[in-house]
Amino acid sequence: MSASRAVRASNALLRAVSAPSAARATKPVALLRESRRHFAASARTMSSFYQWEPECPSVKTEIPGPKAKAAIAELDEVFDTRSLNMLTDYAKSSGNYIADADGNVLLDVYAQIASIPIGYNNPALLKAARSDEMVNGLINRPALGNFPPTDWAHVLKSGILKVAPKGLNQVFTAMAGSDANETAYKAAFMWRRQKERGGAHVEFTDEEMSSAMNNKTPGASELSIMSFRTGFHGRLFGSLSTTRSKPIHKLDIPAFDWPQATFPQLKYPLDKHVAENAAAEKAALDEVEHLILNYHIPPCAVIVEPIQSEGGDNHASAAFFRGLREVTQKHGVLMIVDEVQTGVGATGRFWAHEHWDLPTPPDMVTFSKKAQTAGYYFGNPELRPNKPYRQFNTWMGDPARALLFRAIVDEVERLDLVKNTARVGDYLYERLEKLAAKYPGQFDNLRGKGMGTFIAFDNPRRDEFLARAKKLGVNVGGSGQAAVRLRPMLIFQEKHADILLETLEKIARSW
Amino acid sequence: MSASRAVRASNALLRAVSAPSAARATKPVALLRESRRHFAASARTMSSFYQWEPECPSVKTEIPGPKAKAAIAELDEVFDTRSLNMLTDYAKSSGNYIADADGNVLLDVYAQIASIPIGYNNPALLKAARSDEMVNGLINRPALGNFPPTDWAHVLKSGILKVAPKGLNQVFTAMAGSDANETAYKAAFMWRRQKERGGAHVEFTDEEMSSAMNNKTPGASELSIMSFRTGFHGRLFGSLSTTRSKPIHKLDIPAFDWPQATFPQLKYPLDKHVAENAAAEKAALDEVEHLILNYHIPPCAVIVEPIQSEGGDNHASAAFFRGLREVTQKHGVLMIVDEVQTGVGATGRFWAHEHWDLPTPPDMVTFSKKAQTAGYYFGNPELRPNKPYRQFNTWMGDPARALLFRAIVDEVERLDLVKNTARVGDYLYERLEKLAAKYPGQFDNLRGKGMGTFIAFDNPRRDEFLARAKKLGVNVGGSGQAAVRLRPMLIFQEKHADILLETLEKIARSW
Repeated sequence: MSASRAVRASNALLRAVSAPSAARATKPVALLRESRRHFAASARTMSSFYQWEPECPSVKTEIPGPKAKAAIAELDEVFDTRSLNMLTDYAKSSGNYIADADGNVLLDVYAQIASIPIGYNNPALLKAARSDEMVNGLINRPALGNFPPTDWAHVLKSGILKVAPKGLNQVFTAMAGSDANETAYKAAFMWRRQKERGGAHVEFTDEEMSSAMNNKTPGASELSIMSFRTGFHGRLFGSLSTTRSKPIHKLDIPAFDWPQATFPQLKYPLDKHVAENAAAEKAALDEVEHLILNYHIPPCAVIVEPIQSEGGDNHASAAFFRGLREVTQKHGVLMIVDEVQTGVGATGRFWAHEHWDLPTPPDMVTFSKKAQTAGYYFGNPELRPNKPYRQFNTWMGDPARALLFRAIVDEVERLDLVKNTARVGDYLYERLEKLAAKYPGQFDNLRGKGMGTFIAFDNPRRDEFLARAKKLGVNVGGSGQAAVRLRPMLIFQEKHADILLETLEKIARSW
Repeated sequence: MSASRAVRASNALLRAVSAPSAARATKPVALLRESRRHFAASARTMSSFYQWEPECPSVKTEIPGPKAKAAIAELDEVFDTRSLNMLTDYAKSSGNYIADADGNVLLDVYAQIASIPIGYNNPALLKAARSDEMVNGLINRPALGNFPPTDWAHVLKSGILKVAPKGLNQVFTAMAGSDANETAYKAAFMWRRQKERGGAHVEFTDEEMSSAMNNKTPGASELSIMSFRTGFHGRLFGSLSTTRSKPIHKLDIPAFDWPQATFPQLKYPLDKHVAENAAAEKAALDEVEHLILNYHIPPCAVIVEPIQSEGGDNHASAAFFRGLREVTQKHGVLMIVDEVQTGVGATGRFWAHEHWDLPTPPDMVTFSKKAQTAGYYFGNPELRPNKPYRQFNTWMGDPARALLFRAIVDEVERLDLVKNTARVGDYLYERLEKLAAKYPGQFDNLRGKGMGTFIAFDNPRRDEFLARAKKLGVNVGGSGQAAVRLRPMLIFQEKHADILLETLEKIARSW
């Protein structure tokens, strides 16, 4: 297939899928064939990590197509479907490709909101899921704080703790990002009050005990968690009080009167705004220090995402985070790094904060999403509360999910997927820079250089951009007001990047 | 084996396990043999639902024994073990029996804090866990709000929704009891503010949107959730603000200034305190109404457990709950029934609130624990927020756990286990009444009559009582200050009740 024929085919596909639905329905099969040939021709010859995934996307119907529409209507009777993006046929999804009810197969660079690490129906996970150990964890669910399994230390050490961030050798396990963050906050409050009391041995006063039962001070502490504007840390009551992404996340929900500092708003390209960006980061750190010293409800911890993800893919420099470590340490405030979205390899390091070269580790690091389980890591033994049952709940996580994370870790190591992501990320970023130069205004504020595939850009008609990508066979997500956020899996390779890049160019070219 | 010989054997066992550990180590094997013979002789001939469980407990070592001690020390390096009750060998546990690292096998009437429904290593669950559907749900974890599986409606309708409380035909799925309650609270806040605004069509004001981002009113609503003294609803920040069980659960954690009403403190036996108890319930309802009308942060919902479980197994009459439904409805306040611990059959009805014969259903019912998944049921379509993404998070539950609940529901129906629990509960209660009469002061305030096996009593030396039970081969839990709470599984039969009763009597007799 010649290059010009490939372009003709892809243009025909684009016209068809961009046209009103009546026209669109006419020639799907022929177009699909053309599309397949085109993608196959342009894809690099490198083989996939796994042989079971398709070679390219294949869009056969509108999305949602007729089967999906019927199923969505049925689902909506019992389950709110207004945020539904695509009704998914998981059995038919594989590797980097997500399938829907109507047989459409899309390259998936959104990956269940950045939470699929090593592909749909990964054979290594299939094996782990069929193991006796997994079945045992599923059907005999323990209350982990009271009745941990005999091999729980081994499961932790060979999985969750094998990849623990440097300097953090303990874990409190949780269910998802929100409660991972909230339990970290609880540890921070207890730690700070213990220091104020004079140590772990100091008993609670009667006044503290009785006032706590009435939700009043001194038993309920009057302390806060500081977060950053445009940050996202979850949607339960404590985590939502630190989330500052969008009004729709927060409206009508009571919130704690906790402080927020400005997250530096970097200008792009970075090399043309060096002084300005450094000044923005300095101002942000000054604000953090000012709030630590002056906020009327003193913060005992600051929580920060290495890259503000939901809030629009906002980056800051390693120097900024080193400064944050310094200012928190100086004032005895804990630093919690929320790696719920950035963790587990996506930035080309296992944990994004490894990019910072911190002088001392963060006090706590929270994780979820690609880990398929959740919790917070810590190292300082003082972060264990002074008495049992202070940090406790019935399940305290899920051993089945912990076993799955272990299998993910093994596969990430076996295939060197963090390194793969770093390399493919560079490949992708370089080509996106060229697209940005070629199509001004379509790939604004390209960001994420050197951060693996954790790349984003702004597009003025972002939602339409995402809808077009889907019609062309690529499932992409947005973040913030205008960002297109790329969140491929760790098994995303140059050949997948090529398909993505071609698709992005098709959209840009058509506008 | 004659009755007197059985008594001698059990007394010998009792003396051995009550003695200091040096003496205890001398004859465990011989004693075990005696113990086995004793239990086997006294157990009723009725066969188990499943043939795979042991006939009786078997305590071979101290608990923790040498193997457990070593494993606990290793675990403690990375995971707080101070709330550890028993290091558990789940592979060797079966049915009503829990096994530990040293080969001790105990009758388990605590059941992972009331969260194992149909026994360890249940063959029906084993089959479900090995199914392709389960494996698919485990390894391809969806973001359910965005990318639900094609069969999600079917999974819900054949499982979670098949057992939905009468009048509640929709569900929001969650991860555990805490976030099930908190998402229900969020639905309540949004519902109330929508009413105040004048309907779903009324848009948010600019002031609401900007103030919400600063955690301030009017965007962050100044409303509250009312709960009851000694109630327990979870330990994240919103749920903990409604939890009023013990100071250790609440100390140092910031809390919302939300109202609490007194839960009626019934006196036992009920038939001797009829007027007094009715007055206590009336006073409690008057207090609820007073707080609805006068509390400085108006409640939009009241949350209540059918039986306050963690707080000490506090019961109230069906009339009280009917009164609560009436007073909440009168004032346009939602009634949320927290069935996290009472749900899924333990009270002899599938949902405990079925005992009340309510004129109209509760507005929301939350569930977790024995369901092995979590969420809240509702019926009123106005409880769906007026826009998508208001009630949303990445995972919104776990399909693997939803499939497990479906298998549980099928097995509960197949074996008629709710009816079984009602019958066995009556059997157990009747015999406990006799023990209470025979050993005054040991089985105080016996409660839970007609509530299946959801039975409790107070013992002045409760913690020692629980420790003795464990030494005698029965794993029991406590609640509140002095309660021994019985939380057998739904496969608990008369023969298990006999073993439990004999053990309880041994302890009482020895004091």
